[in-house]
Amino acid sequence: MKKRIVLALGGNALQKNGEVTAEAQKRVANIVGSVVADLADRYEVVVAHGNGPQVGNILIHEEQASTDKAPAMPLETAVAMSQGQIGYWLTQAIHNAFAKKGMHRKVATIISQVVVDVNDPAFRNPTKPIGQFYNEKQAKALAKVNHWTVKEDSGRGWRRVVASPKPIDIVEKRTIRELVKDGVIVIAAGGGGIPVYRTKVLKRLKGIDAVIDKDFAAERLAEEVKANIFVSVTAVPNAYINFGKPNAKPIHKVNTKEITKYINDGCFKAGSMLPKIEATTTFAKKGGIGIITDIDHLREALTGKAGTIISK
Amino acid sequence: MKKRIVLALGGNALQKNGEVTAEAQKRVANIVGSVVADLADRYEVVVAHGNGPQVGNILIHEEQASTDKAPAMPLETAVAMSQGQIGYWLTQAIHNAFAKKGMHRKVATIISQVVVDVNDPAFRNPTKPIGQFYNEKQAKALAKVNHWTVKEDSGRGWRRVVASPKPIDIVEKRTIRELVKDGVIVIAAGGGGIPVYRTKVLKRLKGIDAVIDKDFAAERLAEEVKANIFVSVTAVPNAYINFGKPNAKPIHKVNTKEITKYINDGCFKAGSMLPKIEATTTFAKKGGIGIITDIDHLREALTGKAGTIISK
Repeated sequence: MKKRIVLALGGNALQKNGEVTAEAQKRVANIVGSVVADLADRYEVVVAHGNGPQVGNILIHEEQASTDKAPAMPLETAVAMSQGQIGYWLTQAIHNAFAKKGMHRKVATIISQVVVDVNDPAFRNPTKPIGQFYNEKQAKALAKVNHWTVKEDSGRGWRRVVASPKPIDIVEKRTIRELVKDGVIVIAAGGGGIPVYRTKVLKRLKGIDAVIDKDFAAERLAEEVKANIFVSVTAVPNAYINFGKPNAKPIHKVNTKEITKYINDGCFKAGSMLPKIEATTTFAKKGGIGIITDIDHLREALTGKAGTIISK
Repeated sequence: MKKRIVLALGGNALQKNGEVTAEAQKRVANIVGSVVADLADRYEVVVAHGNGPQVGNILIHEEQASTDKAPAMPLETAVAMSQGQIGYWLTQAIHNAFAKKGMHRKVATIISQVVVDVNDPAFRNPTKPIGQFYNEKQAKALAKVNHWTVKEDSGRGWRRVVASPKPIDIVEKRTIRELVKDGVIVIAAGGGGIPVYRTKVLKRLKGIDAVIDKDFAAERLAEEVKANIFVSVTAVPNAYINFGKPNAKPIHKVNTKEITKYINDGCFKAGSMLPKIEATTTFAKKGGIGIITDIDHLREALTGKAGTIISK
């Protein structure tokens, strides 16, 4: 029986060398596609992906060109748009990688809603900057009209900030699970999922403006599909203790106890390597294998020869 | 055994009374959701939808606010974005309509690529205006840079025009078929599908800038899922012969021979009622029931008491 693997691709990874056109991003998607097609001999593959720069650009376009006749879409809908966009590129790239091998495999992107808790403490302190830069006056005016929180962003101007709550459930999990069982290569939980909450009465779903960390959402997805391996695919071959400092040290094989010590010692950068470490560690604690590596070292990492490999 | 029904919703229908905000469109989606949840007792339901005004606004935003750092996405990718957007709204609305009944049913939007023929005659004479208006000079300059075809649009300014080729295949048809069999309410072929063609060598898929008629694509979908009934859901309770003229006459029940005569006599408006008539007639010729009606008369039409009902 094939092992099941969930890959969580960074949204930044699609914009290699800062190339941001659709054509350039599709070229990177093609590399991902050929890796997925190679893995599919030995693994059942599920792909999750980030959307940071893509949804950022969608929001900038939506906000800058917003008019009464063509009003800007809200963040949660923009996340859905980015799932369509990136999901399409990946679906096509994976399909074509199989075609190149003379093979046909079913590939499908599922638009995914991810449930968050409206009482998540993240909503009391929004920290995630999104969309375009404004000057202070514009930002404060927009904040008033749209009920936004705005903050000054590292001397570069003012931006809207939103909460980054924890994912607690994937609405489409059963459908995704059945597709994986049926042999479909599924792309899901894009951009961490469309953030929704359940209303108290009737348990209706309602969209909420927030950004869910794609590694945390992908980890939930990996649990839901009962994956054996969860890989956070990033820009570096492996995680480092004290990355960028003179005492930097790459991590190869590590158990959850050791890595938890490093986390508690503050060895990883928040908002960058830390969520990847936390997500893969959570997965490993539940008995799976968590891996952090880049797309070029993915195959080697799966044979234990590269990457950061976390196990219980 | 439940009958299988494919609903093709107009993209315009979501913008009731010209209300174009996400909130307003979600309210209309909720009406669709409750109709789908009601139908699901007796039918297996598949939903296709248009995207005319939605992808139009996406393109306007993308083009107007395009910069080197955040370049505009091409039309085919914009279609994928609109599938995410509208698919999300419909998925959530249908989910919530079931929740209101105290029920849970799986609902999923599949990002859908639809294959067209690069030799389709439509590519030699692009007629479908898309995106924003320009003056003649701007339009011709953009045409040169982007290899667009531009045309003057009814005295309102210049616009890009693209081809509207016939859909010949739905790439994700097998996955959609299996989901429907598994009892999932599927939303697919949004906006007529993301237009792609198959390359001669290796049969790779490649996106192409075009607009596929949503009724033709939905009719293909209806055939692929072996639907019994195909409904083109529009703004009027039924089709008319000579709509808007003094001799206008509503059509209730009609066979394919009679309706073909009306088509040949030029009784239906091209780009408006004609594609709906053609798509439902094609479906009826193959042995199914084709219906044209609005959302308010859908239930009555299914019991033969309203709408335009086309059978062999």
